[in-house]
Amino acid sequence: MFAKLTAEFVGTFWLVLGGCGSAVLAAAFPELGIGLAGVSLAFGLTVLTAAYSLGPVSGGHFNPAVTVGLWAGGRFPAGQVVSYIVAQVAGAILGSAVLYIIASGAPGFSLAHGFASNGFGEHSPGGYSMLAGAVSEVVMTFMFLIVILGATHRRAPVGFAGIAIGLALTLIHLISIPVTNTSVNPARSTGPALFVGDWALSQLWLFWVMPIIGAALAGVVYKTIFEQEEKPPITGRP
Amino acid sequence: MFAKLTAEFVGTFWLVLGGCGSAVLAAAFPELGIGLAGVSLAFGLTVLTAAYSLGPVSGGHFNPAVTVGLWAGGRFPAGQVVSYIVAQVAGAILGSAVLYIIASGAPGFSLAHGFASNGFGEHSPGGYSMLAGAVSEVVMTFMFLIVILGATHRRAPVGFAGIAIGLALTLIHLISIPVTNTSVNPARSTGPALFVGDWALSQLWLFWVMPIIGAALAGVVYKTIFEQEEKPPITGRP
Amino acid sequence: MFAKLTAEFVGTFWLVLGGCGSAVLAAAFPELGIGLAGVSLAFGLTVLTAAYSLGPVSGGHFNPAVTVGLWAGGRFPAGQVVSYIVAQVAGAILGSAVLYIIASGAPGFSLAHGFASNGFGEHSPGGYSMLAGAVSEVVMTFMFLIVILGATHRRAPVGFAGIAIGLALTLIHLISIPVTNTSVNPARSTGPALFVGDWALSQLWLFWVMPIIGAALAGVVYKTIFEQEEKPPITGRP
Amino acid sequence: MFAKLTAEFVGTFWLVLGGCGSAVLAAAFPELGIGLAGVSLAFGLTVLTAAYSLGPVSGGHFNPAVTVGLWAGGRFPAGQVVSYIVAQVAGAILGSAVLYIIASGAPGFSLAHGFASNGFGEHSPGGYSMLAGAVSEVVMTFMFLIVILGATHRRAPVGFAGIAIGLALTLIHLISIPVTNTSVNPARSTGPALFVGDWALSQLWLFWVMPIIGAALAGVVYKTIFEQEEKPPITGRP
Repeated sequence: MFAKLTAEFVGTFWLVLGGCGSAVLAAAFPELGIGLAGVSLAFGLTVLTAAYSLGPVSGGHFNPAVTVGLWAGGRFPAGQVVSYIVAQVAGAILGSAVLYIIASGAPGFSLAHGFASNGFGEHSPGGYSMLAGAVSEVVMTFMFLIVILGATHRRAPVGFAGIAIGLALTLIHLISIPVTNTSVNPARSTGPALFVGDWALSQLWLFWVMPIIGAALAGVVYKTIFEQEEKPPITGRP
Repeated sequence: MFAKLTAEFVGTFWLVLGGCGSAVLAAAFPELGIGLAGVSLAFGLTVLTAAYSLGPVSGGHFNPAVTVGLWAGGRFPAGQVVSYIVAQVAGAILGSAVLYIIASGAPGFSLAHGFASNGFGEHSPGGYSMLAGAVSEVVMTFMFLIVILGATHRRAPVGFAGIAIGLALTLIHLISIPVTNTSVNPARSTGPALFVGDWALSQLWLFWVMPIIGAALAGVVYKTIFEQEEKPPITGRP
Repeated sequence: MFAKLTAEFVGTFWLVLGGCGSAVLAAAFPELGIGLAGVSLAFGLTVLTAAYSLGPVSGGHFNPAVTVGLWAGGRFPAGQVVSYIVAQVAGAILGSAVLYIIASGAPGFSLAHGFASNGFGEHSPGGYSMLAGAVSEVVMTFMFLIVILGATHRRAPVGFAGIAIGLALTLIHLISIPVTNTSVNPARSTGPALFVGDWALSQLWLFWVMPIIGAALAGVVYKTIFEQEEKPPITGRP
Repeated sequence: MFAKLTAEFVGTFWLVLGGCGSAVLAAAFPELGIGLAGVSLAFGLTVLTAAYSLGPVSGGHFNPAVTVGLWAGGRFPAGQVVSYIVAQVAGAILGSAVLYIIASGAPGFSLAHGFASNGFGEHSPGGYSMLAGAVSEVVMTFMFLIVILGATHRRAPVGFAGIAIGLALTLIHLISIPVTNTSVNPARSTGPALFVGDWALSQLWLFWVMPIIGAALAGVVYKTIFEQEEKPPITGRP
């Protein structure tokens, strides 16, 4: 269990350092910046790379919503949910701390630029309303979990899940960074919010509630609909 | 069959929400926008991610032209073509509806910007003629189906089809967004057109006819030429 | 053999239509253009997608230099080299023709913009000398063949060659478009040059000679050095 | 052993020519340049392509820090460490030399633009301090090795390591080019520094020391924590 929790800790550390780091350090670099597309790629690749290296140890969640969604889908034991989430949040905080050490080594750095925190309303990158942000986070996390539950199912080709899941996170960022700066991961939202405080902390609740709603819904939907046909026909139960 | 149709519904929902969503929400974001390359990646990743997660359930068409092309190539039963297409179009409409809810939550949103509809002539992003648009849609869908038929053939290495097919859609968008905003998928065209109405609806026919022509042609060509050598030599038939 | 040659014809058609097409149609699209990175990705994805779909039929060369390099490396029969090359060049010409039909459907199109032809000296995108262009084409094609010969070797993991080879072509374009507009493929150079004529035709020789030198060299080097250790130790021959 | 060292030599040559080459030749190309995201992709693809083609010969290190990290993790024999590193540095120098020949063929080329050397303080692309640079190089190399050790572990799905490792290098560049121009590879830093001399040589020590510290640390951590659970339970040893 120590190895599993360490894997979740390191993987979520990597997700926050890499994803938020690319946003803070490189997105708006003069002339040559990587933009939202580069940040999207970075977030996805943190998960892709951690999935192949740490996934075999812990299952590779790196995200409280994923842990909840897998539990709701009947794929993860209830008894380990809390310890997984604690390890993920701790990793996310360390990721933000290391990013702070690096980022603050440059002239002109300021937490007031947002430090890659998630937000809505006046703190949405594109000024999207709270409703738009909530819908986006629920739907994006729902689809993220559908991809995860499907790509790791025994029907799916072996080995490809890490590619599908990592690139699903890239896709989700390509769509929704302008709306909420994209969370779909409460741990990822918590790390930067603790450093920025203020509005980032007061809006943090949305990035715990909505991703978890979307993920739990996906777990139930997947189990109910997509595993339906595999039940032995003799039982007659729906 | 309910699981299959739901998979097609959800996958096409994801294709339209993700592909058109990245275009509407993120392509032209000030300074950091993802541009046509980011939109191309997003479209491809909707298919890649849905192929690995929902593909094992329904075969992963998410596109009426693909369903027709697979039928023409002898890989899909005629009796399921219509129900697959209905599920796809329904998913595309829901995708556009959810995108509308999110996108309209930002100041300055207007359906008059096109809402990622497909078009030709004065509604082509680059002002391409109807002829250019028709040729582009036929040829791009033809090649999309050649990739699909080839990569899912029993000769091809197992498991890689989702990567090849998803990235084929990325490639097709990298080439042809300026021409028609890229359809190659009648369902994807129908979703946004219903919201925009007007010119988008009146040009919609082209994005049903041309992709289906290209796909059907590819099915016949693939079956005739590329499966030829596998026939048992004893029959003597060409 | 007809299926094989058709596969080479279609694959090279796709390479030229997709690669050169992304350059001509989308690279410099106002504000949102895909740039050299998008074109690089497109070239690579033509090969990746064709490798998984048509590769199982013909081996997936789509490039006279690749055919020569595989022959030099002892992996392709001498007797089929010429017919493969003829099919590739024919496909490349059709690819350019279809691209011409589409591209000329937009206002402001002109072959005088280069139509994605390869060039050196004053026709190099970045003004690189003939020497720089020649070195670049030899070295890039050399490394392209090293990747091909290695990734398709029986030692390499099964199925991944299409990814490695396609993305190698993306990489080569990311490096060398400014130098020669990147050829490493005489067929790809021939297609557009026939439409542009003039300087493009008079510089075409370099894009036949240098890629073929690089490829043949790689074939010999790979066979001599990297297959060395696999010879049965008893023979004693180097 | 000759084949192995040649594979390391050629692979590191490719890493430097491709990665630094994309930076020097294409990153800032007027209007269409590939930017930091394109350079990040190029670096990663050098490793991905070499991993699938040359990896089966030598193991595919192409980086002294990787060789040290694998040794520290108990995966590589001490006796071959020095010869691997010598081959890597030699390859890196040739990569820089070939890049110099190509790059100097264009008007306006000057080594004073940095030639893709790594640096900190006033030679950091974004003006990051030595401390920020040191932390970044240690942490990025640490995580690079965690990915390598995990993705090549017998628990991980076969064949995917080249994708995970190559794209990990892309990710690392997406994050940290602004900080130090990204090394995580002493050989890659040595090549350009020998051409630029001056400040690049006098700062080179940091790009040997920090990557090797990070890599060695990762080797020890991986061996201690993530292989722990696989020990036979009967021994009782931690």
